[in-house]
Amino acid sequence: MTVRVAVDALGGDRGSAEIVAGALEAAGDGIVPVVFGPEGLDACGLEHVVTDGEIAMDDKPAEAVRALPDSSLVRAVRAVGDGDVAAAVSAGNTGATLAASLLHIRRLRGVFRPGIAVTIPTRRGPSVLIDAGANADARPEHLVQFAHMGVVFAEEVLGIHEPRVRLLSIGEEPEKGNQLVLEAHAMLTRSELVFDGNTEGRTLLEGEGDVVVADGFTGNVALKTLEGTIRSVLRSLRSEIDHSVRGRVGGFLIRPSARELRARLDPETYGGGYLLGLRGIVVIAHGSSSRRAIANAVRLAARGVEHDLVGRLERRLPSRSAGAAD
Amino acid sequence: MTVRVAVDALGGDRGSAEIVAGALEAAGDGIVPVVFGPEGLDACGLEHVVTDGEIAMDDKPAEAVRALPDSSLVRAVRAVGDGDVAAAVSAGNTGATLAASLLHIRRLRGVFRPGIAVTIPTRRGPSVLIDAGANADARPEHLVQFAHMGVVFAEEVLGIHEPRVRLLSIGEEPEKGNQLVLEAHAMLTRSELVFDGNTEGRTLLEGEGDVVVADGFTGNVALKTLEGTIRSVLRSLRSEIDHSVRGRVGGFLIRPSARELRARLDPETYGGGYLLGLRGIVVIAHGSSSRRAIANAVRLAARGVEHDLVGRLERRLPSRSAGAAD
Repeated sequence: MTVRVAVDALGGDRGSAEIVAGALEAAGDGIVPVVFGPEGLDACGLEHVVTDGEIAMDDKPAEAVRALPDSSLVRAVRAVGDGDVAAAVSAGNTGATLAASLLHIRRLRGVFRPGIAVTIPTRRGPSVLIDAGANADARPEHLVQFAHMGVVFAEEVLGIHEPRVRLLSIGEEPEKGNQLVLEAHAMLTRSELVFDGNTEGRTLLEGEGDVVVADGFTGNVALKTLEGTIRSVLRSLRSEIDHSVRGRVGGFLIRPSARELRARLDPETYGGGYLLGLRGIVVIAHGSSSRRAIANAVRLAARGVEHDLVGRLERRLPSRSAGAAD
Repeated sequence: MTVRVAVDALGGDRGSAEIVAGALEAAGDGIVPVVFGPEGLDACGLEHVVTDGEIAMDDKPAEAVRALPDSSLVRAVRAVGDGDVAAAVSAGNTGATLAASLLHIRRLRGVFRPGIAVTIPTRRGPSVLIDAGANADARPEHLVQFAHMGVVFAEEVLGIHEPRVRLLSIGEEPEKGNQLVLEAHAMLTRSELVFDGNTEGRTLLEGEGDVVVADGFTGNVALKTLEGTIRSVLRSLRSEIDHSVRGRVGGFLIRPSARELRARLDPETYGGGYLLGLRGIVVIAHGSSSRRAIANAVRLAARGVEHDLVGRLERRLPSRSAGAAD
């Protein structure tokens, strides 16, 4: 089986050459990346769809998608809706990717809102955080639906048997949380999901839940805090070590271990998150993605296609009314 | 000057002996800890106010405070309101500490809601996160007032000149955030504060702002994610290192550096957060506080008294109507 994956060459902070290099790295093994970018772009021999216009990181999503229908981002996403490719990857404006996806790929029947599902590299293996930032504001029934989508992802793609769901809050007790979380907690308790109650940010890397549910604002703050803290701690340790000869020798000796740890914790290892709830596969990569991150994002997109993530979501999601009444 | 600090001996997960040991450690240097706990408690020679009843971590705050007026937590807080002590420290139920404080110490004139201000050990020195968890739900004007309170704390206690304020959100652009943050952003822009715009969780340890403002739910999730990630990363590094002889030797050599880093990043170094906006000083310590954390929390409380934090807040906070109209 060959999976064609559209890659938005203009998304991301490092320029199109880095994105194309990532796409090239992922080519082969049944993956055919298709580069979407302007005339004159060096596609390094990959298939190249010529596009016109660029959506910037700080453009207003809906306006930009309307004003730039031939931009690399919109065209890459539209190619999924049109059936020209099986999946799309963009490291560009997240809001615009969401808006273009709603317009050109559309939601699965019964889905309130798509949510971004990212993989967290916990000490016990991968877990899923959903929503990591598609919707800044959410209602309790959205959180319940994110839980359902996260469970399908965890089970079908990550291979976790009967994934346990946790709700991200400010204490483990059911009465801890804001209004949104309190209501979502009650609905999750009544649902057929394996719901283990609330979890706190401190346990995110410990892997207490297989699927951690949050509204997109909280999930995004938690994810970025997690990623930033990992980077800050490792950087601070290195600068402490560099202060002394003894430290520098020790630093040399622990280098393989530190590299191992960095590889496990590095967000680039996963490359990006799925925008779940659509009639097609879209992967949202970090704006700062390197070629390695882009290559992994393309592989993630292809894996979603191979596992028929969309079809499985369609079959397994409770109907909208059932979801709301859960 | 001698500062009397009430210490709730029954708060915290490690038992009263650990709390008393921490209080004892902080005694001297002008600090006189007063232990609030049941008959028969070994106060190690410290002044002991005998109390009756214990509020558990998962008790409902308002109910517990009403039902247990002679509990160690309520009596310690009430002693501040009564003027018997200058400040109180509890590692117990945060909600109950807040409820008891509102009842027995009361808010400063013009304060909507007290907020928890914690010190974050960034690479550039300490910064303030407020609200770290006093209020699960907040309105935009509350966030603006948290910013004002955080600025007074940063300037008067941490000695930061003209503290810069940042709003915790999901992107740096003003249009990124949930409804609450969007409205607070607009109000902060119009205020007389030095407002540098939004910041993301990834920069919390980098110290991009002197005062980082959030609602209590988001602030608490971010703080716990930060603390948990620091612990997880250091623990994971150690277990990677222990896998090989080379790693173990390296680990031995970097031990002083790692210890230095842990000391800087350890939340116990600060001991707790101020509950700001009251007519007295209350410090909320972690439930898991060791004796060292409690000792530092008592010192933090005393420092708040010495710096007349309450008086300065009272003089410097814009009036409630001005705050709301900012």
